[in-house]
Amino acid sequence: MKATAIAPSNIAFTKYWGRKDEILRLPANGSISMCLSDLLTTTTVEFSPDYKQDEVTINGGGLEEDEAQRVIKHLDRVRSLAGIDTRAKVVSENNFPSGTGLSSSASGFAALTFAASKAAGLDLSEKELSILARQGSGSACRSIPSGFVEWLDGDSSETSYSVQIFPPNYWKIADVVAVVSTDKKEVSTSVGQQSAQSSPFMEVRLSNMREKNERIKKLIADKNFEEFGELVEAEALELHSIMLTQRPALIYWTPGTLTIMKLCGRWRAEGLEVYFTINTGQDIHLICEAENIDKVKGKLKELEEVKDIIVNFPGEGTRLLKNHLFNG
Amino acid sequence: MKATAIAPSNIAFTKYWGRKDEILRLPANGSISMCLSDLLTTTTVEFSPDYKQDEVTINGGGLEEDEAQRVIKHLDRVRSLAGIDTRAKVVSENNFPSGTGLSSSASGFAALTFAASKAAGLDLSEKELSILARQGSGSACRSIPSGFVEWLDGDSSETSYSVQIFPPNYWKIADVVAVVSTDKKEVSTSVGQQSAQSSPFMEVRLSNMREKNERIKKLIADKNFEEFGELVEAEALELHSIMLTQRPALIYWTPGTLTIMKLCGRWRAEGLEVYFTINTGQDIHLICEAENIDKVKGKLKELEEVKDIIVNFPGEGTRLLKNHLFNG
Repeated sequence: MKATAIAPSNIAFTKYWGRKDEILRLPANGSISMCLSDLLTTTTVEFSPDYKQDEVTINGGGLEEDEAQRVIKHLDRVRSLAGIDTRAKVVSENNFPSGTGLSSSASGFAALTFAASKAAGLDLSEKELSILARQGSGSACRSIPSGFVEWLDGDSSETSYSVQIFPPNYWKIADVVAVVSTDKKEVSTSVGQQSAQSSPFMEVRLSNMREKNERIKKLIADKNFEEFGELVEAEALELHSIMLTQRPALIYWTPGTLTIMKLCGRWRAEGLEVYFTINTGQDIHLICEAENIDKVKGKLKELEEVKDIIVNFPGEGTRLLKNHLFNG
Repeated sequence: MKATAIAPSNIAFTKYWGRKDEILRLPANGSISMCLSDLLTTTTVEFSPDYKQDEVTINGGGLEEDEAQRVIKHLDRVRSLAGIDTRAKVVSENNFPSGTGLSSSASGFAALTFAASKAAGLDLSEKELSILARQGSGSACRSIPSGFVEWLDGDSSETSYSVQIFPPNYWKIADVVAVVSTDKKEVSTSVGQQSAQSSPFMEVRLSNMREKNERIKKLIADKNFEEFGELVEAEALELHSIMLTQRPALIYWTPGTLTIMKLCGRWRAEGLEVYFTINTGQDIHLICEAENIDKVKGKLKELEEVKDIIVNFPGEGTRLLKNHLFNG
C-alpha cells in the first residue's frame, strides 16, 4: 500500500483561467501546454491502518490548514474509488519553488494522484488519472500525459481531461525559467480564478479561445516558432489583462517580472528569437528554440533580478518511480 | 503679434484611448479629468514677417522632426483661422518632465493654442479654444477649462470639446505625482492610440464608457471618495489592459511604476485612503483627499524608485500671462 510517483509541472501556452464548474474544476476553456522536464514533484503515498489521520509533509514541512484540507480531500477521492478507509502518509518534494508561478500544484496533484491511486491498489488509465488529478488542481490534469498536451474542453467530469497531441521529442523547444523571487504570491491561483468572471473582458476572451487553441495546435504541428511565440506571448498578456481587470484586481507581476518582459522585446529586436509567458505568479518563462538556450541564459545571467535559471525541454508526463514501487 | 499663455496638464479619471477620427482627433469615447495646479507649460508665440520659417524651442532645446511638424501644423491651423501668413517663433517651457506619463502634450498644445490664437489677433471662446487645442493633441482640449472637466463625446469637430463640470475649489482632493524615471517612453501616445482597435477588448470597453463617465461624474458630485478612487484605479488598469493586448503590445509601466501600484493596495489595507492612476507612461498619480497628502508623500519619500514628488490640486485651466501680453 505504498507508491512513489514523479510528475512534471507544465507550462500553458494557452491558459486555464476561470471555471464553468467550481466543484468539478471544469475550466472555462480548453488549453494547450507542455510538460516541463526539470520542474518535478516526487510524492510517496502510503496507506496504512497504523495511521490515525492523514499526514502530509511537503519539502520537509507541514502545510497551511486549507492546503492540507485540499490534499486530504483528494485522498478521500482516491479512497472512495478504491473502496478503502485507511489513512495515509504523504511525503512530497518539489525540486523548484512553490507559489511563485511555476505551477507546483500541477505537478503536486499529478504526482499525488498517481502515487495515491497506485498505493490504494487502483490501476487507472491515463484518462482516468487525468480526470482524477483535475479534481485536485485543474492544471494537474495536463501533467499526466507526456510532451505537448491538450486539456479537452469538456462539459462534464468525464470529458474534461488531457491528451497528448505531440510526444516530447516532436519539437526541440525550451522553456528557460527565470526565478525572480521565491516570495509566495499573496492570492492563490485557486482563489483568484473564482473572480475571473468579474473582468468585463472575460466573455470576449472565452469567445475566442476555441479558435486560439486550434491555431496554436496548428503552429506546433507546423513548428512555426515565430508565430507560435507571438501567440504565446499575446496570450500571457491577455491572461494578465483579465486578472488586472478583475475585482479585486490581481497583480501577480513583480518589478523583476516586468523588467524581463520588457527586455524580451528588446532581445527580439536584436535578433534573439525568444518570447515570454507567465502564469499566476512572478516567475517568467522564456520560450526559445533549443539552439538559443545558451544565448537566453547568457542574457538572464546578466540580470540581478534573476535568482535562478531552470532550463526545461518538453518532458515526460507523470510516472511511477519503479524502485519505490511496493504494489501495483 | 506676441502672447504668452500658461496651461496645466490634466489627469484623466476616465481615459482617452483610441479615436473615431484620426485626423480630427475625435476620441473613441468621452472622458473626465482634472486640471493639475502644478504641472504647467508656459508658451510664448510671436508672429512676425521677420521670421523666414517657424522656429520652435522647448525647454531651451529643439524638437524631433515629427514633433516640430506637429507644432507647425498647429500654427497653420491658427494662421488659417486668423487669415495671416506670417511665420512664428515659439518658446515653451514645462516645469515637469516630458514623455513620462505626465501629459506634457496636453499642457503644451493648450498653451500653444491660447498663445498662438491671441498672438494672431483672434479672440476665441473657451469652446473654440478647446476645439482647436484638440486638433493639436486630443487631451489638450481638457486643459482649457478650469477644475473638473468633461470632454464631451461628440461625433464632429464642433461637438468634441471640453467643459467644466465643477470648479477647482469644489472638492479638496489631490494628485500626488511620483516621478519614477525621466526616460522618455519608447512609443508615443499618439502612435500607440492608432492601434487601440487591435485589442480584442476595445469594443467591450467602449460599450461601457458612457455609463462609466456618468458614474464618475455622480461620484465627484457626491464627493464619494472611496468609490471614486476605486473606479479611477480600475479604469487605469483597464486602459493598460487594452494597451497590453494591442498588437504590438504596449508596456508603459516600469518596475518603479509596478512597485508603487502594488504598494498602493497595501497602504489602503493599512488605512491610508489612496488610489493610483497612470497615463501612457511610467509616472504614477496617487489620488487622495487633501488631508492625506503628507502621509502619501511620506510613503513615497521612503522609496528609492521615486525621483521626484509633485503635489497637485484641482487647478485653473489655460490663461494668458497678462504681463507678457502685447495684443488682444
